[in-house]
Amino acid sequence: MKPLLEVHPWKVVESGFQPEHNRIVESITSLGNGYMGMRGNFEEAYSGDSLQGTYIAGVYYPDRTVVGWWKVGYPEYYAKVLNAVNFIGIDVTLGQKELDLHQWQPRDFKRCLDMQEGELSRRFRLTDEAGRSFFIETKRFVSMEHRQVAAVSYSITLEEDPAQEGATLTFSPYLDGNVVNEDANYGEDFWLAVAERSEADLQLVAMETKKSGFVVAAASTFRLYLNGTELSNIPRQCISRTRYAATEVMLKIQPGDTLVLEKTIAVTTSRDYPAEAVSDKAAEILARHKSKRYSELFAGHAKAWAAIWQEADIRIEGDPEAQQGIRFNIFHLNQTYTGDDPRLNIGPKGFTGEKYGGSTYWDTEAYCLPFYLSTSDPEVARNLLLYRYNHLEKARENAAKLGLKGALYPMVTMTGEECHNEWEITFEEIHRNGAIAYAIFNYVRYTGDKDYLRQYGAEVLAEISRFWASRVSFQPRKGVYMILGVTGPNEYENNVNNNWYTNRIAAWCLEYTLEVLDELSRDHAEDIQELIVELNLSAEETMQWEDIVQRMYFPTVEELGVFEQQDGFMDKELLTVDQIPPEELPLNQNWSWDRILRSCFIKQADVLQGLFFLGDRYDLETKRRNFDFYEPMTVHESSLSPCVHSIIAAEVGCRSKAYELYLRTARLDLDNYNNDTDDGLHITSMAGTWMSIVYGFGGLRIEDDRLALRPFAPENWESYSFRVRFRSHRLEIQVNAAEVAVKQKGGSSLNLSIHDRHFTLPPDGELKIPIPS
Amino acid sequence: MKPLLEVHPWKVVESGFQPEHNRIVESITSLGNGYMGMRGNFEEAYSGDSLQGTYIAGVYYPDRTVVGWWKVGYPEYYAKVLNAVNFIGIDVTLGQKELDLHQWQPRDFKRCLDMQEGELSRRFRLTDEAGRSFFIETKRFVSMEHRQVAAVSYSITLEEDPAQEGATLTFSPYLDGNVVNEDANYGEDFWLAVAERSEADLQLVAMETKKSGFVVAAASTFRLYLNGTELSNIPRQCISRTRYAATEVMLKIQPGDTLVLEKTIAVTTSRDYPAEAVSDKAAEILARHKSKRYSELFAGHAKAWAAIWQEADIRIEGDPEAQQGIRFNIFHLNQTYTGDDPRLNIGPKGFTGEKYGGSTYWDTEAYCLPFYLSTSDPEVARNLLLYRYNHLEKARENAAKLGLKGALYPMVTMTGEECHNEWEITFEEIHRNGAIAYAIFNYVRYTGDKDYLRQYGAEVLAEISRFWASRVSFQPRKGVYMILGVTGPNEYENNVNNNWYTNRIAAWCLEYTLEVLDELSRDHAEDIQELIVELNLSAEETMQWEDIVQRMYFPTVEELGVFEQQDGFMDKELLTVDQIPPEELPLNQNWSWDRILRSCFIKQADVLQGLFFLGDRYDLETKRRNFDFYEPMTVHESSLSPCVHSIIAAEVGCRSKAYELYLRTARLDLDNYNNDTDDGLHITSMAGTWMSIVYGFGGLRIEDDRLALRPFAPENWESYSFRVRFRSHRLEIQVNAAEVAVKQKGGSSLNLSIHDRHFTLPPDGELKIPIPS
Repeated sequence: MKPLLEVHPWKVVESGFQPEHNRIVESITSLGNGYMGMRGNFEEAYSGDSLQGTYIAGVYYPDRTVVGWWKVGYPEYYAKVLNAVNFIGIDVTLGQKELDLHQWQPRDFKRCLDMQEGELSRRFRLTDEAGRSFFIETKRFVSMEHRQVAAVSYSITLEEDPAQEGATLTFSPYLDGNVVNEDANYGEDFWLAVAERSEADLQLVAMETKKSGFVVAAASTFRLYLNGTELSNIPRQCISRTRYAATEVMLKIQPGDTLVLEKTIAVTTSRDYPAEAVSDKAAEILARHKSKRYSELFAGHAKAWAAIWQEADIRIEGDPEAQQGIRFNIFHLNQTYTGDDPRLNIGPKGFTGEKYGGSTYWDTEAYCLPFYLSTSDPEVARNLLLYRYNHLEKARENAAKLGLKGALYPMVTMTGEECHNEWEITFEEIHRNGAIAYAIFNYVRYTGDKDYLRQYGAEVLAEISRFWASRVSFQPRKGVYMILGVTGPNEYENNVNNNWYTNRIAAWCLEYTLEVLDELSRDHAEDIQELIVELNLSAEETMQWEDIVQRMYFPTVEELGVFEQQDGFMDKELLTVDQIPPEELPLNQNWSWDRILRSCFIKQADVLQGLFFLGDRYDLETKRRNFDFYEPMTVHESSLSPCVHSIIAAEVGCRSKAYELYLRTARLDLDNYNNDTDDGLHITSMAGTWMSIVYGFGGLRIEDDRLALRPFAPENWESYSFRVRFRSHRLEIQVNAAEVAVKQKGGSSLNLSIHDRHFTLPPDGELKIPIPS
Repeated sequence: MKPLLEVHPWKVVESGFQPEHNRIVESITSLGNGYMGMRGNFEEAYSGDSLQGTYIAGVYYPDRTVVGWWKVGYPEYYAKVLNAVNFIGIDVTLGQKELDLHQWQPRDFKRCLDMQEGELSRRFRLTDEAGRSFFIETKRFVSMEHRQVAAVSYSITLEEDPAQEGATLTFSPYLDGNVVNEDANYGEDFWLAVAERSEADLQLVAMETKKSGFVVAAASTFRLYLNGTELSNIPRQCISRTRYAATEVMLKIQPGDTLVLEKTIAVTTSRDYPAEAVSDKAAEILARHKSKRYSELFAGHAKAWAAIWQEADIRIEGDPEAQQGIRFNIFHLNQTYTGDDPRLNIGPKGFTGEKYGGSTYWDTEAYCLPFYLSTSDPEVARNLLLYRYNHLEKARENAAKLGLKGALYPMVTMTGEECHNEWEITFEEIHRNGAIAYAIFNYVRYTGDKDYLRQYGAEVLAEISRFWASRVSFQPRKGVYMILGVTGPNEYENNVNNNWYTNRIAAWCLEYTLEVLDELSRDHAEDIQELIVELNLSAEETMQWEDIVQRMYFPTVEELGVFEQQDGFMDKELLTVDQIPPEELPLNQNWSWDRILRSCFIKQADVLQGLFFLGDRYDLETKRRNFDFYEPMTVHESSLSPCVHSIIAAEVGCRSKAYELYLRTARLDLDNYNNDTDDGLHITSMAGTWMSIVYGFGGLRIEDDRLALRPFAPENWESYSFRVRFRSHRLEIQVNAAEVAVKQKGGSSLNLSIHDRHFTLPPDGELKIPIPS
């Protein structure tokens, strides 16, 4: 496929409208601010193919589960992110004809996402039957400054007018809640109407979700400017009907005139206000901003983005596509999650599509946390952790449902309740519990915030450990603990015994929990005593944890010096991916499930995920042997796969392999690599791409409580630089083929290691170290 | 629960109406004749709880598949047996009030299924507000003589009439196609109207199934008799509307009068006639029988049942409940499948409910075939085999879908296409192919019809063997063939490696196929040559089969001398069922699926199924060791489980255990043992019950081409006798504690073995042999 979009360091540009790829471009040009967002749908009507989507964080619908055969323990519902009220809409007519790009032939079309300032714009020209030519320019943003606010600017210029008679235009800015989800299990409409109002300068629609009872209100107003001068007292027609409110204006413009409509929107929900106050709050917030012009609101928004980029930017010299790719990822990660609301998390599609709901997966802990740790205030990562802490009670219930003790976090969730419904995942992909414990470890090690353990972390760790202790079984003849019937991170194996990764992370959880309890007993004896009483944690119980740590079984292929992915893996026919006929890839679209299962082919990092997480326990030789054994069998059919492989390849010195794997993730959505960008973007894997650079090429690690770097520059790149926060330090790391420069902005003296040599970086200091070849 | 029904050797009687158990009694009192059937619904209206169901063999609806997550290879539809036009219906009013037992209080209620003659009758008394007392008696049957015909007799007597004014009755016999399936995946209506007619002496409704396009027509007529004399020229009101036709009559009867309505019905389908002729055919067949009274039609039907019982009856002395139980099973098996149409098969619920569709499972080959082999004309069993032969092309397509060669028969089917949709069953429960090959072996060994192999069997066997050869994988380090990623008969294990039963039956298939090809090469060189060319079967291929037979891997626990159910089974915590708290049983209603999977508990015979099928390959000690190891872990949560265990228990001399296990299957539905009889009866497991007696207590086997018996009488029984056909011989075997008597009716000289001693039984001869203790 030819590239859909132009390469530019800060922009994503579609030049010339490509209706056949509209859904893809809509996904790519989505906007969001952590609170709400929408796909790159057009403001005006569009009757061609499009996936209309406006989403509001945390507003979900518990859609009744669909399964062929019910199994005990299946959740009653699958939480879906909801397509919510369309608030960007503006119906437009030029002359008598509706502006609909499916009906007109646009010229000079450009759709442009400006990632630096977070704005989506379009410009195009249309000529009507009378030969009049119009130039249209639209802009919008979802404010990073005022999260409940969005604004649209819609400008029309009558450029040519052979008859010199002018043209009549109508604008009908609207709010429309008559929306559905394409992925509704039973085709249901998820919303009930609450209120609609249309007045001269206020449109308001309030709606309530069925079952989950979220009230959402959108209020909007607009102003008109003719050649820069505001028009007042334009006659307006107010239209309201069920879940719809619009105010229509009709004007005549003369050749050369430019008419601009600026629409401002406020959106509120019952997540933040009492249900009965939601509509008034929307109107109130709108009232606060309605006097501001688009440009004024935008300035505050752009400033917020500048602050984000100040922390999070990665610069790549010598590879414009890579530069665009990484900024695209960083941009969308920041649009999806801003970390100021611990009730929220990172949906796999963010605000870019319906698929996989807006639910939380282990992706957050395993892939996204490091990005937010390094590029945001520690509060952001802490809120991701608190999200799970707040769901602890639900996780206890979930474990009890399976007849187990402690806490089992859900595979997919919106509220802490499990809402996935394939037994092999829902009930068996229990390694997710390990990632949640690991995130606590990772957060504490990175931020140094040990107090988190005392206040929240220890309780979560103890309950997770309790789960593992009740889930293992002791094999008396072999004298080992086993974990039977699991699905590992490689979901192309189901219901296996002794998945190495699961056993490994389970034993690690127990070990880390014991360590934390021990340390807290020393330093915070009172707090820990309180916890022990609350959890009714006995010495016997922790002794059993110790015993499991000592006697956990880890399948190993001695003669090859590799860990065995699970019992019996070596009985498979061991092939490599290059032996699969290319037309049979991806396997999940071409092979029946049983064939995938009995093959050796691996969906995503499994043993290698363990070697990445617990990297300081394994030497480079072990990592290299396992990488050489497993990577060639890996089809990378999860977007989360290449990054971990790229990082390990970089670590064991396979630099060109590291770069090749990086390329599979870097522009996944921009190039529609997996042919599924139409559904939405792969948000969580974007954090993996960031890790490929920072942890992979940059070699960032935390070792012995110290920041360690082992950077190199990929051959194709002249240089690259990235910024990280580490505790109180703000660093910029620049790497080229020859050397690495580490600069500190302000801060205090920092001990760090670069390529295994120790250095001290003074405040505002800089180190330049040659890179060993 | 107190017994719902009275014990009687030939009848099932509900005394006193039990509306709370109505669905259960409806299931139990279902009628059928292999062509059509219906649940024990009332003829008149009933507004209480009821599962209305009339079913016509082979008329199915391809209901769109429901799954949570689609996997490549899933079938588009799940075939459902259709609830079809209700043709027994007669609306009745007594005085002005509709006869509806939910609204009246019946006295002296009896619902009686006569199994000897295949008739369902009811009798009850009602008293209206005027103090008039009516005695109602209904009877119906679905003709075993004329398969497209059914008849109903509805009699009302005015027994008491205080005012001596008589009573006005209306009868409205109807055909009603406004029926739905309770189990429709998306609540759809499956039928389209084709035609309705209502005339003085003809009601006709024709309908067509959506998608599958089956046309079904029902035609009916009725006559009235007052005190035995036919009434003619009664004014009739003809009513027809969409999918409904009725003719209403109103009469006045005097105290002491008995009014009888006799309704005769003919049902035809486009399975037998061109779609456009179906209605006319129904009318034509009806015309042929309409002059006959109920009693005359019934006489032919009862005679057909007498002939069935003559072949198939089992008599048990000294245990009336067991007597009723076994006859109930034999009765329903004969109602479900009569073997005259090779397009039909045995649905797990027959004509007694919707659940599991009317589809075909491996139950037919594994459990039902022996019953029909012993109790029916060989043509019946042969048609069961031809059913699969006729689906060979679809089975080839099914294997190809999974990327495999040869033929994989479906797990669930109506037309040869797979219509199950759980990957662990659909794609992995491939042992079903073994049962289909085994049925060929079993049929040929029992009937001696070797010609079947030449004409049909060899081709099926070769394609099944081809499937196995492409499905195994060679493990070079161990030098063995393995079968990875399967589900065995014990569905409480999913996606396991080297299920002993699957490996065993696969190797057996290859071995038997080679043997058959070899024998055919000797005896029918030309035919086999033709087949080899047609299948493009090379010597290389059969040599590979030979190699697989030689080097198949069979997991074994050497130290215990048992076969290992699958790789890794011995790593489980080995518990016995008596260690499960009773309130947690059945596991499938109380434990989450993962817990069931990782436990050792077994749903139904797995290793033991192999020891039953291939019993002549294993000595008693091996069987005993495996039985003692596996049976205590078996929860028997399939209705097909206890019978196989009972047979093996009997064989290894655990007679009381054999009897205990027999009891779990003998009155499964009569006593609603599994609490699910409301959905319909467990038809296929009924054949297992029959086997428990004949193969278990009777010890029937075919050994060295000879009939072998090793009978004993369970302690609680005075004696029992059963009849079997064996090739051209018709035998009756009577067993009591002391001796077994084998009588031959007519026939020729028969060599047989009884308790391992050889005898020759002359024509019309009898042997009496003492039973060793």
